Amino acid sequence: MDQSADVKSIEKWIEELDQFNQTPGNGTTRPVYSKEDMEARGYIRDLMLSAGLTVNEDNMGNLFGSLPGTDQSLAPVWTGSHIDSVPNGGKYDGAAGVFAGIEALRMIRESGLPHKRNISVNVYSGEEMSRFGVCCIGSRALTGRLKPNDLKSHKEPAGKSLYQVLKDAGYRPDAFESEFPHKAPVYASLELHIEQNDVLEKAGCSVGVVTGICAPTNLIVDVYGVQSHAGGTGMTARRDAFMAAAEISLLLERLALESDSVYITGTVGEMSLEPNAANVIPGHVTFSIDIRSVALEDKDDLLEKLFAGMQEITERRKVCVEHTMMNHDKPVICDEHIAEIIRKSAADLGIPAMDIVSGPYHDSLILGDITKVGMIFVPSKDGLSHNKAEWTDTGDIAKGTDVLAKALFQLANEA
Amino acid sequence: MDQSADVKSIEKWIEELDQFNQTPGNGTTRPVYSKEDMEARGYIRDLMLSAGLTVNEDNMGNLFGSLPGTDQSLAPVWTGSHIDSVPNGGKYDGAAGVFAGIEALRMIRESGLPHKRNISVNVYSGEEMSRFGVCCIGSRALTGRLKPNDLKSHKEPAGKSLYQVLKDAGYRPDAFESEFPHKAPVYASLELHIEQNDVLEKAGCSVGVVTGICAPTNLIVDVYGVQSHAGGTGMTARRDAFMAAAEISLLLERLALESDSVYITGTVGEMSLEPNAANVIPGHVTFSIDIRSVALEDKDDLLEKLFAGMQEITERRKVCVEHTMMNHDKPVICDEHIAEIIRKSAADLGIPAMDIVSGPYHDSLILGDITKVGMIFVPSKDGLSHNKAEWTDTGDIAKGTDVLAKALFQLANEA
Repeated sequence: MDQSADVKSIEKWIEELDQFNQTPGNGTTRPVYSKEDMEARGYIRDLMLSAGLTVNEDNMGNLFGSLPGTDQSLAPVWTGSHIDSVPNGGKYDGAAGVFAGIEALRMIRESGLPHKRNISVNVYSGEEMSRFGVCCIGSRALTGRLKPNDLKSHKEPAGKSLYQVLKDAGYRPDAFESEFPHKAPVYASLELHIEQNDVLEKAGCSVGVVTGICAPTNLIVDVYGVQSHAGGTGMTARRDAFMAAAEISLLLERLALESDSVYITGTVGEMSLEPNAANVIPGHVTFSIDIRSVALEDKDDLLEKLFAGMQEITERRKVCVEHTMMNHDKPVICDEHIAEIIRKSAADLGIPAMDIVSGPYHDSLILGDITKVGMIFVPSKDGLSHNKAEWTDTGDIAKGTDVLAKALFQLANEA
Repeated sequence: MDQSADVKSIEKWIEELDQFNQTPGNGTTRPVYSKEDMEARGYIRDLMLSAGLTVNEDNMGNLFGSLPGTDQSLAPVWTGSHIDSVPNGGKYDGAAGVFAGIEALRMIRESGLPHKRNISVNVYSGEEMSRFGVCCIGSRALTGRLKPNDLKSHKEPAGKSLYQVLKDAGYRPDAFESEFPHKAPVYASLELHIEQNDVLEKAGCSVGVVTGICAPTNLIVDVYGVQSHAGGTGMTARRDAFMAAAEISLLLERLALESDSVYITGTVGEMSLEPNAANVIPGHVTFSIDIRSVALEDKDDLLEKLFAGMQEITERRKVCVEHTMMNHDKPVICDEHIAEIIRKSAADLGIPAMDIVSGPYHDSLILGDITKVGMIFVPSKDGLSHNKAEWTDTGDIAKGTDVLAKALFQLANEA
């Protein structure tokens, strides 16, 4: 292919998409199905159409921009990522992979070289879990991990169900059962994403060849104590929900630090105290637990110790604890054949690449249920992500896009 | 005095006042200067007028319902409490003392017996610290602890200053400097309040004679770490603001438990994480610290250890910490002469009473700056307060009111 990625287009698209943002000047905030997310989808759809792609959308809002191959009897190759964001996050997380996919398809189309399989660049809805407490709702629907009942049981903090939010956004959630999971086979999926860690930056590599993706386990924990007066209630008479939550949080951290897993993390990112007043002992605390690992057994081992510790802590403190397991996903090992194609493409283009494990999850983790997956990482400055200071050199995204286009083209020509 | 307190009136007033409530059905929420608080003031003012009292209000909203004595050259005796509440608190905290005061003045007036000194039942504005992060703003203004500059520097969480809130509520904050502190001498202050602990209930006493009032020290602590991706950032690379805050909180708890103070508490009642998303390591956490003790040196000792521990924790975790001392009040020893009058009044009435220390602060703590103070406690069921389940037998409030009326009458007749 004589084409190479246009840095200027990618740069322009990233800036333009970032206009759909609830917190301009303070990072990127684009919750799934928000007004900003819906407008951003319109923007991407127009971009796909201008790139000569056929656009389809399903009733979860997943967008498919397809470039037809010469043999319609063959299963398609997928690429793409997401455009929703965490609160006050960065503008590269997700978006880089969507634009890399659109640009790669432009390159393939403009090269004039034939390819057998359809290639589709997709935008998966709601990869971030911030709004509904569950990640990757778009790809979960495609693979069957999201069940019809989940639409009504998954709720945003304000209490509105996913079902109602979809309906309000103009989708037909009642069509869910007939539409999902995705019926037609998929040959392969290859997603480009920013690394969100500093391994590539430190190694001076523009491209990471992902060999495995850690999977998240997400819990919502409720601790119930006794709300009481901060001055009137002596230290030994307290049943303080917050102090129990603090102790559980530090236990999670210690267990993750002490684990002998190759890679495991434990995070408390969200917490609310009731009634949240300085002179009142909290009677109820709700908080999130996020655990990631490349090995399911390492997560199970940590969870077992965590639950045992939670029981000891809450019994000693005479408080009650309840937890809801939002998801408990299996890590995925990337397809070695795809990884080899990525390595070879980078080598052919003279782009330094290295193997890498993904700590964060991605839609590819879920898509691993229905197809073989590969991922290309590009460096994140200082490893920062889910942060307004998140930054990736668009030159690196362009290099990753060159590798992506070459690899997609090869996969699309496999019989 | 042949009069005794009317349980039915007290019961009715408590229920009627509770109608001015932002969270009916879920405890009492009446922040100072809120619409509900302003309406509640109107209700109390009418009640004072019906009880034949002369009503005055100052520019902090403190209400004074006065019953004239026979010698206007003598300094008055004060009673009263507050009507604002914490979020989802109870309906007795504060209100019991205001109604006891109004009822006691009715009893004294209707007895027809002469008394020398004016007796005034007062409503002090904003005893709870929930809205502005500082407690007892009304009594602080009266005693000079609240300075003119504080009106603009004290802000509610939404950012509005006390100055602006006062102005919006119809007061004249520009008159503050000429009006405060309160110029005329006060002979004595005697406040009735619910106990907010279970000492009286367990001892089977209807009345507690308060000998000392613990004083609060309130801090706002900000921890700044690095906001980052929960999956992408390895455990040892984190600079997690929340885990540092959790560790500081547990240290506070441990220091309070280990202190050899007669009475000391340490509470974290309020906390907010930024950006507060399950898959993002918090970059900034703000939380409250509330410390109470009967001895200033015990608080100073705990604070010293806490600050040393905070420094160690934040250095080890590579996060930054800042704290703002909202108030650091001196505990008060109640006037022994007043305490003796309360003991004697209870004994004369055949009401079982006992000496007690107040863990919570009250307006009396602040009023101790300008006059000798005494307090009468009535039992709180299960010691619960700042809780919607807060409950006090109105029969006990009536007994406390009988003791209050007798003691006020005696104080008002002292030369």
